[in-house]
Amino acid sequence: MTNTRPNFVRNCWYVAGWDYEFTAGKPHPRTFLAEPVVFYRKGDGTLVAMADRCVHRLAPLSLGRLEGDDIRCMYHGMRFTADGKCVEIPGQDMIPSSACIQTYPVVEKGSWAWIWMGDPHLADAALLPDARGLDDPVWVLKSGQLDYAAPHELINDNLLDLSHLAYVHVASFGATPGWITQQPRTTQIERGVRVERWVESAPPLPPLPSLAAYESVDMWASYEFLIPGVFLMYTSLHPPGTAKGSNHAAPAGDVLFSNFTCQAVTPLTAGSSRYFFSWGPGSQFGGEEIAQQMIDVAMAAFLEDKLIIEAQARIIAMSPGEKIMPNAADRTVTIFQRMMERMKHPASTSS
Amino acid sequence: MTNTRPNFVRNCWYVAGWDYEFTAGKPHPRTFLAEPVVFYRKGDGTLVAMADRCVHRLAPLSLGRLEGDDIRCMYHGMRFTADGKCVEIPGQDMIPSSACIQTYPVVEKGSWAWIWMGDPHLADAALLPDARGLDDPVWVLKSGQLDYAAPHELINDNLLDLSHLAYVHVASFGATPGWITQQPRTTQIERGVRVERWVESAPPLPPLPSLAAYESVDMWASYEFLIPGVFLMYTSLHPPGTAKGSNHAAPAGDVLFSNFTCQAVTPLTAGSSRYFFSWGPGSQFGGEEIAQQMIDVAMAAFLEDKLIIEAQARIIAMSPGEKIMPNAADRTVTIFQRMMERMKHPASTSS
Amino acid sequence: MTNTRPNFVRNCWYVAGWDYEFTAGKPHPRTFLAEPVVFYRKGDGTLVAMADRCVHRLAPLSLGRLEGDDIRCMYHGMRFTADGKCVEIPGQDMIPSSACIQTYPVVEKGSWAWIWMGDPHLADAALLPDARGLDDPVWVLKSGQLDYAAPHELINDNLLDLSHLAYVHVASFGATPGWITQQPRTTQIERGVRVERWVESAPPLPPLPSLAAYESVDMWASYEFLIPGVFLMYTSLHPPGTAKGSNHAAPAGDVLFSNFTCQAVTPLTAGSSRYFFSWGPGSQFGGEEIAQQMIDVAMAAFLEDKLIIEAQARIIAMSPGEKIMPNAADRTVTIFQRMMERMKHPASTSS
Repeated sequence: MTNTRPNFVRNCWYVAGWDYEFTAGKPHPRTFLAEPVVFYRKGDGTLVAMADRCVHRLAPLSLGRLEGDDIRCMYHGMRFTADGKCVEIPGQDMIPSSACIQTYPVVEKGSWAWIWMGDPHLADAALLPDARGLDDPVWVLKSGQLDYAAPHELINDNLLDLSHLAYVHVASFGATPGWITQQPRTTQIERGVRVERWVESAPPLPPLPSLAAYESVDMWASYEFLIPGVFLMYTSLHPPGTAKGSNHAAPAGDVLFSNFTCQAVTPLTAGSSRYFFSWGPGSQFGGEEIAQQMIDVAMAAFLEDKLIIEAQARIIAMSPGEKIMPNAADRTVTIFQRMMERMKHPASTSS
Repeated sequence: MTNTRPNFVRNCWYVAGWDYEFTAGKPHPRTFLAEPVVFYRKGDGTLVAMADRCVHRLAPLSLGRLEGDDIRCMYHGMRFTADGKCVEIPGQDMIPSSACIQTYPVVEKGSWAWIWMGDPHLADAALLPDARGLDDPVWVLKSGQLDYAAPHELINDNLLDLSHLAYVHVASFGATPGWITQQPRTTQIERGVRVERWVESAPPLPPLPSLAAYESVDMWASYEFLIPGVFLMYTSLHPPGTAKGSNHAAPAGDVLFSNFTCQAVTPLTAGSSRYFFSWGPGSQFGGEEIAQQMIDVAMAAFLEDKLIIEAQARIIAMSPGEKIMPNAADRTVTIFQRMMERMKHPASTSS
Repeated sequence: MTNTRPNFVRNCWYVAGWDYEFTAGKPHPRTFLAEPVVFYRKGDGTLVAMADRCVHRLAPLSLGRLEGDDIRCMYHGMRFTADGKCVEIPGQDMIPSSACIQTYPVVEKGSWAWIWMGDPHLADAALLPDARGLDDPVWVLKSGQLDYAAPHELINDNLLDLSHLAYVHVASFGATPGWITQQPRTTQIERGVRVERWVESAPPLPPLPSLAAYESVDMWASYEFLIPGVFLMYTSLHPPGTAKGSNHAAPAGDVLFSNFTCQAVTPLTAGSSRYFFSWGPGSQFGGEEIAQQMIDVAMAAFLEDKLIIEAQARIIAMSPGEKIMPNAADRTVTIFQRMMERMKHPASTSS
């Protein structure tokens, strides 16, 4: 066994889960970035995360016992505070200062729990993506998640090139050729890209009475894709012809319907990933029922993605040395990949 | 991940399957020689094979859609002809000439589909083994197949030393010690070996009325084993004493019964293989019923082989550095192994 | 595949199994120290062990046939004596003297079958640990076994630091904090360590009428842990106060109850292990019923160990480069680990 570990972007917030996953009163084991991590809530509800590995003999703390705000390894009984500091070694008075568990900054914001697995001094809540919570007043959001037997990079690539909608998601999203013919405008932003486009002649979905009057609509889709793999998309529907009058700019006039989705990709290991997502209508356009319809459609679509991406991962694993051949639609993919690469090698950014 | 790939003999025809496997109207994914391959039929029924890997992002074409004689990758929509040429990149006018899928020569002959995974300029239908089809007028053949968790070389070795019949196949084939005591004559031929022998005092099987008169018979068994692992065996039964009078030559007189079998081994990966086989009586000696009896016995026997060969593969995998110790019966095995080795390194054949 | 094999201590007796596992009349395949081994009994009942790998083509002899005291490989028929000597190569008169299967010294003693997988000239029955048999007159013992998906070293570590009882086995053994607060006395002995301690205020278990009079008892626990992983523990219960009067020495006075357990860890591969164990009361203190109660409790406890140790193994496998941090309770662990390391590199012991 060598000392090499997979190379991930580290100085960023990864989604660790939904706040409702981390129930109080017990430790929750996870694997992120190929590292074992244990989460638990302190008495005041604060979520903490630390390496799921006792310093003593590397047994998982997640099989341990919560004692107040501390966690005790239930192999030989070492006890640690939520700061990772050892405060008891059974049968031994002296506690070496090196008996510390690595902790990770964690923030909960709007239903999402985020973890920072890089230099903790750089962890800055100001860098948190603006993912909305399930209780956001502007949107009615439902949530879900899926695990992939595929590297997170392939899922990022997928989300950065929505031309795949016209092939992968015809059945689920009713996606139209407009996703190919109408090129998006890509703008590089702080820690990511913004991708905006009009899709003309889109189907008037979901099947709302207010949309029934239209044979087709114009759709404005604008998303940010942020380091390390967070997708925030605003979509709105407009009367036919709006796109033509817009000169490729964001819509100004009537909105027939709007919806919002947050999606986030977190590597479990180098070859497996967890995909978190929410979706739903603007609260003035729909309630729980529409939101449930939308998340059901999204789940069906994401299973379509999972099928092709996991198959792609298997082909890549069988094909060492085979190179990809990017096309015009991949410009955004390539921009983002380069941002990720630069963040893996921070030293080279200063040169 | 390194760029090294398993080392297979490439300039030869491998059995890819039975023609009936490759039904029209959809792509058929396979793995041969550790490479992903997709097969499909053109409108005129011609079978084509190409790398199951879109040049764009390496997604499998077998999840794609047939459009006329073309195949479209259903990830981002690139379309390829049966020659592997890209004819459409959605959202992009220019198509680089390098946007090609590697295709493989394929020939269907007598129920068998063959693929050439080496230098396509050397693919020559004249090199196809004379495997007979299920509609051959001379033989009434039935077919089957089995997958092995074992390297193809171990299955080849098995077929090149039929002394194993006297141990592995006593129950199924009723094989007698004659398979050991009567040494075969091995002749090196173009791209393989011919192995011929008389087996005296063989059981009068299958249980035909015409054989019931004999307590035992003399059996003539003659097979060719051809690069890369194709076994074609003719067997005939004769009245007792025929062998003695033959001076080890092929039989000339009365034939009580004859049968023919084709068997072929194709590597799926370095450690797994697919085994195809047919068997049946000469058409003047039996019909469908006898053929079915024979293929059922063959399947039972091949499961006996699979048991010991997969166990052998596990022992070998646990025993790095352990060497085999060939004995007298292995002469044919060794001859063939050397032919295979030479074909893996074609340059060294000229020196 | 490289020629490197896992590094095990070899010049020692490993438990191969219970005598009752190796039924007469058929070969028994096992994997020990990452080597395939076949066991069978000769006509006189003697157990023999040899490499489960025919010299010819490395097929497993365990798929072979016993013929008297010999074993015949049922692939191509080579026959070997119980000494591993080849006595028949079908179809070949000359038998090379190198056609030998490696055999392993085996001893059966007191229900346990032991195998020596190092230099056979060093195999010495005098080195056998004093594990008692199921028919021992002094103890009424029951037996069991468990397989671990964990390296044997981690199970050894577990048995060498019984402070874990106070955390892992509170539910099963009703273990008390005394296992931590009362430090044991460790003595280095021939090929191992002796670990002795008093545990005061132990629960009066098993629930015998004779113990019912006590709210708690003093427990004397003395075990030897011997190369390569054999645990022999004598435990006795005494009236409260006995420990205090003993000045940390072995008990001299009244024994309320005593019991004995043998446990042995054998590596299957570098990452998996088999754990054999027996347990039961002194024959003057209990019979079959008490013995059964005790082995049931032991099995429950060993499943608690298995849970934490297999989890620990997974964490270690995910954490290349992470080091353990021994504490005071690990002194015995460290002593034994060093003895094992020295035995892996015998040359360095003389320097």
